[in-house]
Amino acid sequence: MVQQERALRTRRVILTAAAQLFDDFGYEAATMSEILRRAGVTKGALYFHFTSKEQLAREVLQENARVPAVPPQRLKLQEAVDQGLLLAHLMVRDPVLRGGVRLALERVGQDQLDRSVPFQDWAEESLRLLVQARAAGELQPHIDPRELSDVFVGAFAGTQLMSHALSGRTDLNARVVALYRVLLAGIAVPGVLVELDVTEDRGARVHEATRLAARAVAHRRPA
Amino acid sequence: MVQQERALRTRRVILTAAAQLFDDFGYEAATMSEILRRAGVTKGALYFHFTSKEQLAREVLQENARVPAVPPQRLKLQEAVDQGLLLAHLMVRDPVLRGGVRLALERVGQDQLDRSVPFQDWAEESLRLLVQARAAGELQPHIDPRELSDVFVGAFAGTQLMSHALSGRTDLNARVVALYRVLLAGIAVPGVLVELDVTEDRGARVHEATRLAARAVAHRRPA
Repeated sequence: MVQQERALRTRRVILTAAAQLFDDFGYEAATMSEILRRAGVTKGALYFHFTSKEQLAREVLQENARVPAVPPQRLKLQEAVDQGLLLAHLMVRDPVLRGGVRLALERVGQDQLDRSVPFQDWAEESLRLLVQARAAGELQPHIDPRELSDVFVGAFAGTQLMSHALSGRTDLNARVVALYRVLLAGIAVPGVLVELDVTEDRGARVHEATRLAARAVAHRRPA
Repeated sequence: MVQQERALRTRRVILTAAAQLFDDFGYEAATMSEILRRAGVTKGALYFHFTSKEQLAREVLQENARVPAVPPQRLKLQEAVDQGLLLAHLMVRDPVLRGGVRLALERVGQDQLDRSVPFQDWAEESLRLLVQARAAGELQPHIDPRELSDVFVGAFAGTQLMSHALSGRTDLNARVVALYRVLLAGIAVPGVLVELDVTEDRGARVHEATRLAARAVAHRRPA
């Protein structure tokens, strides 16, 4: 059991090192020897857990294939924005997530990793919420939910990229908040706009609420 | 003279092939041998014009270091949006520009190409116009021009990336128009909003106007 825990920890250390290199230098420039060096494990340990750089990339991508779940909100527009604010919050903290986002955005046509999936997944998830927001009368009448969900996802992707290039993502929260404030002003009906919470600590609060909800579910499980 | 023209043409063919590979596969994955194959020139010709892949990348980036100039408009918000609409129009047509944008967005820390410059250049240029728009009363009072110029540039960058991933940029114009429409609704005062031209053929018309203006300047030059 202790041995299994140690193996899991080693696996995590390797995955984290790989994700950091993917995030900093991209998939192609990251090498197995550099991953080895950064993880500080033996070659034997690395190849015991992962057979290739492609497998590492696949697992980094897989960890983040899903949009982070957010607690349901009365205003569906709030829920849609919470997804982005939570993602920004998590990206600042989680190197595996950052690596996964970079891999997803890097379209490298020569290998077999499908990178259009994260865009589509998130756009579909946004669309689901925005259709509900529309039905609830939260959106201005000229807004097309499908166009808007693509704008949400594309604009977020570029904003985090710019934050990566200019500040190493230290200003990610602030940039994402600025983006949503500008977007929402043209989207929400006035009565909804004043009720929306788009602040720099919203992502952290959504994260905490998500963790509490997960713990409550765990407690309800029969022993 | 004919020889010189031929040399210039060969140089262009090589630069275009390199830019296409950078755009499709990224800087690291593009190889000199594949650039050679795609350009269809001899190894001697390639190395006569360019000493390395890094030099090719540098020149591709350099061609696009400047934001495309747009004709002055009465509404400065129109001028700011015209920059993005023209860039989208040009990207669909110009592989060297596409390659340059991909290189600019790819942050690869291991080499000496500075990729934060294009973000900053465009953000500064946008800011200049948005400050004028603010002074002219075109912006809603709560809008901060600096935050907004960063939102413009970041959101455009991600939108073209998403268009690249999902449609090979065939829907770039449509996506950029959708982005600006949503953004402007939350930015412009109502009287300005109705006057702004944000349509799918606006980029082509700005391009034509720019070409005519350039020709007029050329004609005024003393012989």
